[in-house]
Amino acid sequence: MRYRAVLAYDGGAYHGFQRQENAEPTIQSEIEAALAGLAQEAVTVLGAGRTDAGVHAAGQVIAFDIDWRHTPGDLQNALNAALPVDIAIRALSEAAPDFHPRFDALRRSYEYRLYVSPFRDPFSRCYAWHRIGALDVSAIRRAADCLLGEHDFSTFGVPPQGDNPVRTVYTASWNAMRDDWHSFNITANAFLYRMVRSIVGTLVQVGQGRVSVQEFHKILASCDRSQSGPVAPAHGLTLTSVEYAD
Amino acid sequence: MRYRAVLAYDGGAYHGFQRQENAEPTIQSEIEAALAGLAQEAVTVLGAGRTDAGVHAAGQVIAFDIDWRHTPGDLQNALNAALPVDIAIRALSEAAPDFHPRFDALRRSYEYRLYVSPFRDPFSRCYAWHRIGALDVSAIRRAADCLLGEHDFSTFGVPPQGDNPVRTVYTASWNAMRDDWHSFNITANAFLYRMVRSIVGTLVQVGQGRVSVQEFHKILASCDRSQSGPVAPAHGLTLTSVEYAD
Repeated sequence: MRYRAVLAYDGGAYHGFQRQENAEPTIQSEIEAALAGLAQEAVTVLGAGRTDAGVHAAGQVIAFDIDWRHTPGDLQNALNAALPVDIAIRALSEAAPDFHPRFDALRRSYEYRLYVSPFRDPFSRCYAWHRIGALDVSAIRRAADCLLGEHDFSTFGVPPQGDNPVRTVYTASWNAMRDDWHSFNITANAFLYRMVRSIVGTLVQVGQGRVSVQEFHKILASCDRSQSGPVAPAHGLTLTSVEYAD
Repeated sequence: MRYRAVLAYDGGAYHGFQRQENAEPTIQSEIEAALAGLAQEAVTVLGAGRTDAGVHAAGQVIAFDIDWRHTPGDLQNALNAALPVDIAIRALSEAAPDFHPRFDALRRSYEYRLYVSPFRDPFSRCYAWHRIGALDVSAIRRAADCLLGEHDFSTFGVPPQGDNPVRTVYTASWNAMRDDWHSFNITANAFLYRMVRSIVGTLVQVGQGRVSVQEFHKILASCDRSQSGPVAPAHGLTLTSVEYAD
């Protein structure tokens, strides 16, 4: 039977979602180890998004095949009991035998958090990028508007296996609460590697007045990776949800 | 010159606020080390509240004497640069030579956070106590009401140096957002050791239906430490603010 699960994790201690040679632990390897313990055989986990080292998830979607004689709720509890405390299975259900979390996904949403203040906040230090100077939110929003729609995003990322760098962005909104807590929410059909963090790093330059809104448009249109601003740090980024046709 | 500072810290890595023999690191010892580095001599830090091992602070108040030739803002920046990332000086100003953060404090406020859900949340695991079963918030609130006013709180804590166990509680409110995020906010003139965590542990028993509201009243009135419920874990507790006459 194939199962589908929604996963939350604090990525701070992990080398990203995807199992790799010579880089442990990963989220995938932890879940595969927990499943192997339950199934008494090797189980392969498929994931919707290959989050980078240090990136978090609130709504990563995975699928796997396992022979399980009890309810999906029992499987969820057994998995949570076996997993480290910084990984949690938030939901689990039976899935169609051909369900594939990556290929079937229609949209992915990410949130990038920033804490903008002269002084650091000890509690958000693992979950938000601390920037000291105030940001021009109005300029950032005008720049972010040009991300909407279908574009070649080569400036901001690298497609997996060197394939098509065109993606469609459905929403890209920069929110600021009480001046100090900022979040950038972006939804697209799919993302290139490093795309959200490169966009955020460049938008912050817009907010600092170092890149104009016009220049941001040109940077996007250049399709030249070297034109991107710095890649924002991983710990501010969270994969919030993955949407499917059902 | 005496200075006064407001401090935030993630207490997770520390053996409490107060410097101790054979238990390092503490918040006080980290700040004293940072100040000694700036002053080139030993500096003693006074604190408003002796938070326990693992307890956090958003508004701890400290005072210290140091010869400093630059502005208070420069001192704040120099201290923040010297301190670990899980401790932050949020404000710093000159103080009267006889200002004492503990003796001059009129009220202290603490917040205790709980995450009430069948499944854990990886992001709040260091800042909220995870409880699985639903809590009866109405019963908890009725029990918490009896904490208000002046009482002998011997049931819930131990006075420092064995002195008077009577304290005056000004506010004690239990809030619940979307059923899963709970917070207990309590303000008093001062607190006994373990008092907030013992109250929370007992109020959770009320919320679980294991202790009635009537029984909670009797437990408070017993002045018998053995009648308290379990001490709630330290990582859910934050010293949020300390108030002074000015």
